[in-house]
Amino acid sequence: MGKVCRWIWEQPVGDLQTEAVQEGLAFVPPSTFESVLALPPSAGRTRLFAELCRINVLYMVAAAGSGHIGSSFSSLDIVAWLHLDELSDGDRYFSSKGHDVPGLYSVLIALGTVPFDQLHRLRRRGGLPGHPDVSTPGIAANTGSLGMGISKGKGMVLANRLAGRAGRVVVLTGDGELQEGQLWESLVSAANLGLHELTMIVDHNKLQSDTFLVDVNDLGDLEAKFSAYGWEVRRCDGHDLDELSVAMRGPRGKPRVIIADTVKGQGVSFMEHTSIERGELYRFHSGAPATDDYVKALTELLASSNRLATGVGAPKVALEAVPVSAPPPPTKMQRLIPTYGESLVAHADANDSIVALDADLVLDVGLIPFREKHPSRFIECGIAEQDMVSMAGALAGGGYLPVVHSFASFLSARPNEQIYNNMTEGRRVIYVGSLAGVLPGGPGHSHQAVRDIAALRGIPGLEMISPASELQLVAALEYVFDTSASSCYLRLCSVPFGLPTDPLSKRLERGRGQLVTDDAGDVVLTVYSPVLLPEAIRARTLLEDHQIRLGILVLPFLDYLDADWFIDIAGKANAVITLDDHYVDGGQGQLIATTLMDRGISLRTIRLGLQSIPTFGSPSEVLEAHGLDAKAIAESVVTLS
Amino acid sequence: MGKVCRWIWEQPVGDLQTEAVQEGLAFVPPSTFESVLALPPSAGRTRLFAELCRINVLYMVAAAGSGHIGSSFSSLDIVAWLHLDELSDGDRYFSSKGHDVPGLYSVLIALGTVPFDQLHRLRRRGGLPGHPDVSTPGIAANTGSLGMGISKGKGMVLANRLAGRAGRVVVLTGDGELQEGQLWESLVSAANLGLHELTMIVDHNKLQSDTFLVDVNDLGDLEAKFSAYGWEVRRCDGHDLDELSVAMRGPRGKPRVIIADTVKGQGVSFMEHTSIERGELYRFHSGAPATDDYVKALTELLASSNRLATGVGAPKVALEAVPVSAPPPPTKMQRLIPTYGESLVAHADANDSIVALDADLVLDVGLIPFREKHPSRFIECGIAEQDMVSMAGALAGGGYLPVVHSFASFLSARPNEQIYNNMTEGRRVIYVGSLAGVLPGGPGHSHQAVRDIAALRGIPGLEMISPASELQLVAALEYVFDTSASSCYLRLCSVPFGLPTDPLSKRLERGRGQLVTDDAGDVVLTVYSPVLLPEAIRARTLLEDHQIRLGILVLPFLDYLDADWFIDIAGKANAVITLDDHYVDGGQGQLIATTLMDRGISLRTIRLGLQSIPTFGSPSEVLEAHGLDAKAIAESVVTLS
Repeated sequence: MGKVCRWIWEQPVGDLQTEAVQEGLAFVPPSTFESVLALPPSAGRTRLFAELCRINVLYMVAAAGSGHIGSSFSSLDIVAWLHLDELSDGDRYFSSKGHDVPGLYSVLIALGTVPFDQLHRLRRRGGLPGHPDVSTPGIAANTGSLGMGISKGKGMVLANRLAGRAGRVVVLTGDGELQEGQLWESLVSAANLGLHELTMIVDHNKLQSDTFLVDVNDLGDLEAKFSAYGWEVRRCDGHDLDELSVAMRGPRGKPRVIIADTVKGQGVSFMEHTSIERGELYRFHSGAPATDDYVKALTELLASSNRLATGVGAPKVALEAVPVSAPPPPTKMQRLIPTYGESLVAHADANDSIVALDADLVLDVGLIPFREKHPSRFIECGIAEQDMVSMAGALAGGGYLPVVHSFASFLSARPNEQIYNNMTEGRRVIYVGSLAGVLPGGPGHSHQAVRDIAALRGIPGLEMISPASELQLVAALEYVFDTSASSCYLRLCSVPFGLPTDPLSKRLERGRGQLVTDDAGDVVLTVYSPVLLPEAIRARTLLEDHQIRLGILVLPFLDYLDADWFIDIAGKANAVITLDDHYVDGGQGQLIATTLMDRGISLRTIRLGLQSIPTFGSPSEVLEAHGLDAKAIAESVVTLS
Repeated sequence: MGKVCRWIWEQPVGDLQTEAVQEGLAFVPPSTFESVLALPPSAGRTRLFAELCRINVLYMVAAAGSGHIGSSFSSLDIVAWLHLDELSDGDRYFSSKGHDVPGLYSVLIALGTVPFDQLHRLRRRGGLPGHPDVSTPGIAANTGSLGMGISKGKGMVLANRLAGRAGRVVVLTGDGELQEGQLWESLVSAANLGLHELTMIVDHNKLQSDTFLVDVNDLGDLEAKFSAYGWEVRRCDGHDLDELSVAMRGPRGKPRVIIADTVKGQGVSFMEHTSIERGELYRFHSGAPATDDYVKALTELLASSNRLATGVGAPKVALEAVPVSAPPPPTKMQRLIPTYGESLVAHADANDSIVALDADLVLDVGLIPFREKHPSRFIECGIAEQDMVSMAGALAGGGYLPVVHSFASFLSARPNEQIYNNMTEGRRVIYVGSLAGVLPGGPGHSHQAVRDIAALRGIPGLEMISPASELQLVAALEYVFDTSASSCYLRLCSVPFGLPTDPLSKRLERGRGQLVTDDAGDVVLTVYSPVLLPEAIRARTLLEDHQIRLGILVLPFLDYLDADWFIDIAGKANAVITLDDHYVDGGQGQLIATTLMDRGISLRTIRLGLQSIPTFGSPSEVLEAHGLDAKAIAESVVTLS
């Protein structure tokens, strides 16, 4: 088996243990699954299998340093039951929400569909991505961006019908996911076409990313809704395998939805959503468990597994232990999101017109301080980005300055036409896309926003700004709220980055940036990404060995370059290297190159950035894979010189 | 008053008449509306007012040469009643579907909100756009792209609440429009927030763009659906003003939807949808009436107006007549859409894997021949682009080659993320965007697709092709179906264009195009748009006076340029002018400029294309406004030389 790595850890794995480990991590080895699968089929066997898979989910997420435990646990009984007891050859299953994929991985690994050593490589390059990808055996669809599942399921059924193939399609959805319009859009023709081969199972675990569904944007009477769409509706306990089996049975002339009442975090007392009160923050939606939580959870799961094992006559559960050591805490890391949250509040204190809109990511996008300080000007929209953006346009028309928040991947794409529509109305709206750029690499390409600049480029008048440090973010917000009269797209990196001192203190001026080296050097490198700026600084050091002086120019504006200013600064360099935390196509490098060309400046220019769909993995794995690490940058400069 | 123009007509207007005109057009003048509005309020007065507005809708659409009569007529009783009898100061009304705006214009003109002479300038520059724009007095929202209305209405209500302003918001929607996911997405929080100020009126006229709703993608039990979303549901006859008034009354704690049963084309016997059978094509959704239809419709409307006038003691209706003459039919016009439709069938005859998907535009995108020849491989998705694209991805996964159709504005934007998701799965799908480019200029910016290339640029592996003639379209389809192994975006111009001989007979080779002049000349101009190619040819002639030889290079590939090939052809020219039927930002010119720069070629390059949100108007008005006509192109070349 391979190595276990937690971000940057590289540790050997250890011995079999039969008790919960006190230090390090532990997983259920293949031999244990083999013995369970050798038992005669029964609900008890499947429940034991699911519980063992929970142990492995806990392990995978803890080892990866991030991942979705809550919904993996809520759906695991369903996923285990489908794979052990329900699905036949030709049937297909996938999860539309996708972030519960550690649960599915643990099942596929236990069944041997996915090689066992992949258990140790969640969110690591060459391993298993944080959201499903069809390149993994047993994965039928790329999901993670919400609401596409029933459409995909319909396509699978129609392809089967056209080809004369038999086979059912089972699609698991979240309940928060039901806020996404595409889902309801997709129900209509499924009913009209009588797609009885299609079953939708709602993992109704009552919580979405932030908190309880009813507190975000309640979906009301789900059974009435689905019935009104012409689907056959059943409801059952999603942890009761007999009820699930019954819900799947019976004659069919229509697509069927099974609303499976589940518990988020099922299987671990303090992870179960029923252990918290409404209004409390649920801590186990995403992210790795703290050590104490890990040990307590493992202890509980091991105990319940052993009880289940006894019930079906299986031997006591053996775990394999993995010693790990925590990486040294990084020093002086910068974080944009908390800075953003505080600065937004300060601007809102001074400007009554600012209204903040959120799409179920209040924690991730830094809006908790705003919500607390200005609750009347906070609008939680749920997972409904198109609705949010059109609503924001009308709020702007009504005299307010709406600030719209989501992850950059989703905000730039899902409501793409709605943003343009707002612009054609002349509505000033601030769009804030977090989780922008290729990092973090763990969640996979659905969440790696590397085409947001391109997708929003062809919108006249939309200013686009990517601050490269905390100080520059503060300056960017001053620019956006106090200087600019336009709509703006603010592109925010969500991962911590190492910038021990922050040189970016200047006020922003449209189309201009800031040299962070004494001069433009022999070769000037432009950069806007906070995670690439440290790489650029390291590349500069590497280049000293080659007697090449690299000038580093931080250019936060993505839609416009002040050509005179740029030529004044960089015109005497031998070449320009542009560094995009984005596809080269449609990125800032293209803007710089064409601006120079328009001015008749024939400065040698090389554009670095992504050229292919981003890989997943640790930060260093991802940057290296795409030639965006310090070494690759330095090599490009050397090649050029 | 101004001139009346039907596309390129420039004719004086005539005298008052009291009978239906036998030739030319006629409208209801301001004096008639003034006398009607001087009557005491009554249902009879409003019905008369609405009927007179129908006469003016008929006039506007006939004069413009295009526009939506059917839904203007179905909604006009509602719109007239709202403006005359229901809305107060502070209340707002808009139509979410937007294409019924000739009806609203006729009301706003009759009320004096919009200057009367604008009646003669529908879809003409400086006049009234084909879909609503907030720059017109009385227009509250830009609509025309479907499904955004309730979101916008919620934003208006929330802005009112924040500001402590009173006022109701009434949003009219289509019924076909209810297939769009954003609409259902937007209903949820309206109910949760108790937005009782919001009323949605469904103009339930039973027909959508193509045909009967039930035959496209039936929405089932609408009352049950809306109730399940927590809205208060009422239903009434949308042509009975008393019933409408009752439906608006009563205490409110929730948003309310009024399902108004209407007749598409109401008021003219042969335009009413009830005059056709299911399966028949409805002829009056969009487009101008033929002369006979115009005269018959006007005769009917005048007779009913006079009956209504008698009923309320108003004088006989006086019309003002406008003599018009038809323009000479253009000779040798090319049309891509019919060519596409026939070629697609030929490819599908030879390739069983081809499946065509449509979003309620079967006529506009040229799919009727395919539907007739290969009904089992035709999937009508209704107005649900996100659903269609995700479904197509799964069909590709199931072994088929899906060809997805919609208007380019919508196809590139609404399912933008879904297209990317399909690409990350490696699914080969052909995306065909019709109505691409700045023409026709009549419908306005919601339908002028000039940012589709940019919006799809950052998708690695997606080939983008814009054929510039019928022959090149045939070659493009051979390339797409028989040569390429990638997903492709095919960008199709939908307006006829003048290209008497078609020089573009060559097979397509990736990244290459075809010179249509003997050589590259002094200045080489690149072009891909069928409507700009004739302008380029005319510019070449204009430039002969300046002793400048303009070479014209047709480059159908929008995502890739074969640099060696290009330099071989154009390298000896003094300069390159790129001509984008698209925003300059993100267009083909940017691709060409950066490709040359990458090769270290310092060829002077000027990029022509749109720089601002497109204006509406006749083809010549629009091209001239954006500097894309032959004269402007020639001037750019002269300036450069």
